[in-house]
Amino acid sequence: MSQTIYFKRQPRIVATSTIAGPKECEGVIGRYVETALADDMFGESTYEKAECKMLSHVIDGAIANGGFEREEIDCIVSGDLLNQIISANFAARDFSVPFLGVYGACSTMAESLAVAAAFVNGGLMHRAVAATGSHFASAERQYRYPLELGCTRPPQSQWTVTGAGAALVSDRGDGVKITAATLGKVVDFGITDVNNMGAAMAPAAADTILAHFRATGEEPSRYDLIVTGDLGALGSRILKDLTWEKGLDISENHVDCGEIIYNVIEDEFQGGSGAGCSAVVLNSYLYRKLMGGSLKRILFVATGALLSTVSSGQGESIPCIAHAVVLER
Amino acid sequence: MSQTIYFKRQPRIVATSTIAGPKECEGVIGRYVETALADDMFGESTYEKAECKMLSHVIDGAIANGGFEREEIDCIVSGDLLNQIISANFAARDFSVPFLGVYGACSTMAESLAVAAAFVNGGLMHRAVAATGSHFASAERQYRYPLELGCTRPPQSQWTVTGAGAALVSDRGDGVKITAATLGKVVDFGITDVNNMGAAMAPAAADTILAHFRATGEEPSRYDLIVTGDLGALGSRILKDLTWEKGLDISENHVDCGEIIYNVIEDEFQGGSGAGCSAVVLNSYLYRKLMGGSLKRILFVATGALLSTVSSGQGESIPCIAHAVVLER
Repeated sequence: MSQTIYFKRQPRIVATSTIAGPKECEGVIGRYVETALADDMFGESTYEKAECKMLSHVIDGAIANGGFEREEIDCIVSGDLLNQIISANFAARDFSVPFLGVYGACSTMAESLAVAAAFVNGGLMHRAVAATGSHFASAERQYRYPLELGCTRPPQSQWTVTGAGAALVSDRGDGVKITAATLGKVVDFGITDVNNMGAAMAPAAADTILAHFRATGEEPSRYDLIVTGDLGALGSRILKDLTWEKGLDISENHVDCGEIIYNVIEDEFQGGSGAGCSAVVLNSYLYRKLMGGSLKRILFVATGALLSTVSSGQGESIPCIAHAVVLER
Repeated sequence: MSQTIYFKRQPRIVATSTIAGPKECEGVIGRYVETALADDMFGESTYEKAECKMLSHVIDGAIANGGFEREEIDCIVSGDLLNQIISANFAARDFSVPFLGVYGACSTMAESLAVAAAFVNGGLMHRAVAATGSHFASAERQYRYPLELGCTRPPQSQWTVTGAGAALVSDRGDGVKITAATLGKVVDFGITDVNNMGAAMAPAAADTILAHFRATGEEPSRYDLIVTGDLGALGSRILKDLTWEKGLDISENHVDCGEIIYNVIEDEFQGGSGAGCSAVVLNSYLYRKLMGGSLKRILFVATGALLSTVSSGQGESIPCIAHAVVLER
């Protein structure tokens, strides 16, 4: 079959919820975020616990915003960046709801949406929550250096978003329809610089976007936006070059969540990253614009860098993936 | 909806492949394993690379055993125990096939089967591979201590299986049908001993098994075997007690992959564990018995402990999960 799958029953996102840290809420996306944190510890004693609490908060928020009770939810599909996806596991512990843990690094929002949509589309579930998040401090500590070391960040680096987002996918009701998905392949262009995720992930985004337009036979203009997750400024330029080289011009309507989440000319350099980046932008700003009608159809392409500190330490390059979902009103 | 989902189109496992280390192949299951390794490094320079190579080997093996080419496969659904599931990510890099990364710790074989079956059942894919694996040395290093330290293992500990297994799930062809699945909830009984996974996971297994029989209204005798993944000897006894207390007697036909994979009276104490444990036993011994007709219907319940070294270090107990799939001939 084609890499693109079609959800004929059109499962829909009937509610979302988002939360983000103080820095994130200063940006243009900030005013669309449901819960703005004044303190990125969220009242917890560790960054990891704060990350978990954010995830739990938005899962609950999406359920409540949809007008449902927890026991009406058939599944939570979630993952995050931490080792053994502990944020998702411990968040799911708060709910007496079946749980599917997924790992796609920063592509998790698209992956969890596609998995939830597949179960709902197949009539196996009525309602499933897709959710993910990230935290700047827990990600820095795990992937790079603890903040306390005060390491200098190189100009090609991005800033992991402190935030989380959840989408309630239902087989009925008013919402944003998930009509198709293109599941990504693992792509590795040999990038080894763990501070340059945008360059590593851009080829994966290009691969999935090219596959999507090949399979559907559509033109990029069919979409109001082609939204990538967290390529950042440099990665976005690389993506546009890579697709242009293959005869697909997406420059007119491409935007990257990492590029728009922070106010420009700050010290995030290339922009935002992390699983929470696209989760926050999709479930706040983009969802609102889709529901309001100012966006009618978007291709949401979240990208993930599938490395670990062990793989990098053993000299491996960075394999990446991108999953795309078609969202329309 | 109920926690139990039914796959009406009956996706089937049309081929499997397994690989295991020298120690595993000494046991009774050993003679059913397709590829017996003489060296648990599998020709690689690190344990992690050996684990990845095993996974790649069985994914290829299942595709070949099914008589297919790689390009006829619509998706690989896989995960493993390592941080950021690098074994699955890097194995998927070898294939130009769409990839869904999942994380369910040692429950991954059941989770990946359920996800693959859902996509195939819904007509979204013709064929998907579900696969997972683990390696004793990489798991010890990550979760406990490097082997080189020579730490003493307590009597309640289990031995992570060095091995991998893959199942090719198809919408047609002769094979073992996947007719239903009960997706687990995250259950935490407050166990904090990271050397006692069996005790931590048994309540999750009990929760899912009880939910399954409640939803289906069946008796345990409807199954030739109720197979748990890696509870080990102690965990199995706890499971039987917990279900018996709730009025469900599974003692007649319960067996645990961790209990049967090694020859008894060795230094594995409670038996085998790890994502590879149930993956190897299911895709070798159990699959053979199902195809041969000596087993007609089994409930395969893989359990996972969803902790990380960080969560344990921050004083958290061990949340666990169990997913069940019904396999019948």
